Amino acid sequence: MTYCVGLCLEDGLVMLSDTRTNAGVDNISTFSKMFTATAPDERMLCLLSAGNLAITQSAWNRLQEGIAFDGTTHTLFTVPSMFQAARLVGEAIREVYRADGPTLSAQNIGFDVSVLLGGQIAGGPMRLYLVYAAGNFIEATPDNPFLQIGELKYGKPILDRALAFDTSLEDGVKLALISMDSTLRSNLTVGLPLDLLVSRQGTQTIALQRRISDEDPYLRLVRDGWSAALREAWQAMPPPPWMES
Amino acid sequence: MTYCVGLCLEDGLVMLSDTRTNAGVDNISTFSKMFTATAPDERMLCLLSAGNLAITQSAWNRLQEGIAFDGTTHTLFTVPSMFQAARLVGEAIREVYRADGPTLSAQNIGFDVSVLLGGQIAGGPMRLYLVYAAGNFIEATPDNPFLQIGELKYGKPILDRALAFDTSLEDGVKLALISMDSTLRSNLTVGLPLDLLVSRQGTQTIALQRRISDEDPYLRLVRDGWSAALREAWQAMPPPPWMES
Repeated sequence: MTYCVGLCLEDGLVMLSDTRTNAGVDNISTFSKMFTATAPDERMLCLLSAGNLAITQSAWNRLQEGIAFDGTTHTLFTVPSMFQAARLVGEAIREVYRADGPTLSAQNIGFDVSVLLGGQIAGGPMRLYLVYAAGNFIEATPDNPFLQIGELKYGKPILDRALAFDTSLEDGVKLALISMDSTLRSNLTVGLPLDLLVSRQGTQTIALQRRISDEDPYLRLVRDGWSAALREAWQAMPPPPWMES
Repeated sequence: MTYCVGLCLEDGLVMLSDTRTNAGVDNISTFSKMFTATAPDERMLCLLSAGNLAITQSAWNRLQEGIAFDGTTHTLFTVPSMFQAARLVGEAIREVYRADGPTLSAQNIGFDVSVLLGGQIAGGPMRLYLVYAAGNFIEATPDNPFLQIGELKYGKPILDRALAFDTSLEDGVKLALISMDSTLRSNLTVGLPLDLLVSRQGTQTIALQRRISDEDPYLRLVRDGWSAALREAWQAMPPPPWMES
């Protein structure tokens, strides 16, 4: 399993993923699920992937080698807009589907892949897309500034309650880490270390890219601090008035 | 969909369920998913059900009419222990499976049902079981004092973090309501009003049974108070040290 979350905020982009892959719970590994394509000041694109590792790696390699697309061969370094980048990622997934889908299907293996694509290309807005296994996609909007893939439910309530388009990048990083921590605690197949990327609006540059391990003092502070804060919060609530004590 | 949670704590039992049923998102209704069988001071049993409403209602009716079991006919009022009550619930589900399973299967409808059974029969311990569609079951223990059925992921992180066997009944009710509220916010097919039941250890009696509506002042306090407390908690955390401001 996997948990990846992307936030497309007024001030910029936050992308966070775990690194655990598993083929059964008795076969777990660490693979980065974060891929970037950057030409500083011109474009900054970041992909997070969930699903079958063979599919996501094949799609990423195809993207690097170039995809036949609109009569020419494109990579994430040549597409002129984020919308075209999302189409390109969808096309890469469809190429894998054409190549591997029939055999996977014959062996009763689902074509399981989804990708978060966030970034900005000079002259255009910052955007965040969720590309599905069919190669189609949706986009985050100010009304719904985050998108998730993989094991999304454990970490969704905090984002539903707390995140808004005008949340600062610093608070966005905090909330993404809290959301991830809830998932790490409840699903063993989502695991540390984490990959974090932050890009500020209008810079087309990576402001921060960091591998966060179990020993990271800030991650520990978030984990322990959040548990303590929740405990204080529910303990401070008055008891239900319907119960005689 | 449905969300039901049961807590089997040192001091007693807390059972909480939503009441929404749906056949597609364009056809939602309110049905209680809580059933009780009580003989005050002698036995107090409470069932919460999730899954196909026709299956759960059929199972409940069969339990009331009596199930052929160990050479005689039993109901929840005649079984001698909670373990036998869980076996009886499992047998009721298997009766429905024998009656309806083949036709459901022929029409490609899954046999989707699960039941939380909590309670106490005089002379025995308080117990909480989760009965599966196959009629087999697991039991809550002090290490894992809560069980959930239905849409369980949204509401699990708070219970994972905060609930322990020695949590008081009052705090258990609070935490169950917070867990339910996280689910209500994130899944439209889980809906108000709620059904709550509390039974104190050793009493074999219902201490509290309450229908909780959207207008309930305490539910509102929990919902608003929890959102505010979470906001304060993450806002009070220091910003990530890796980010230049």
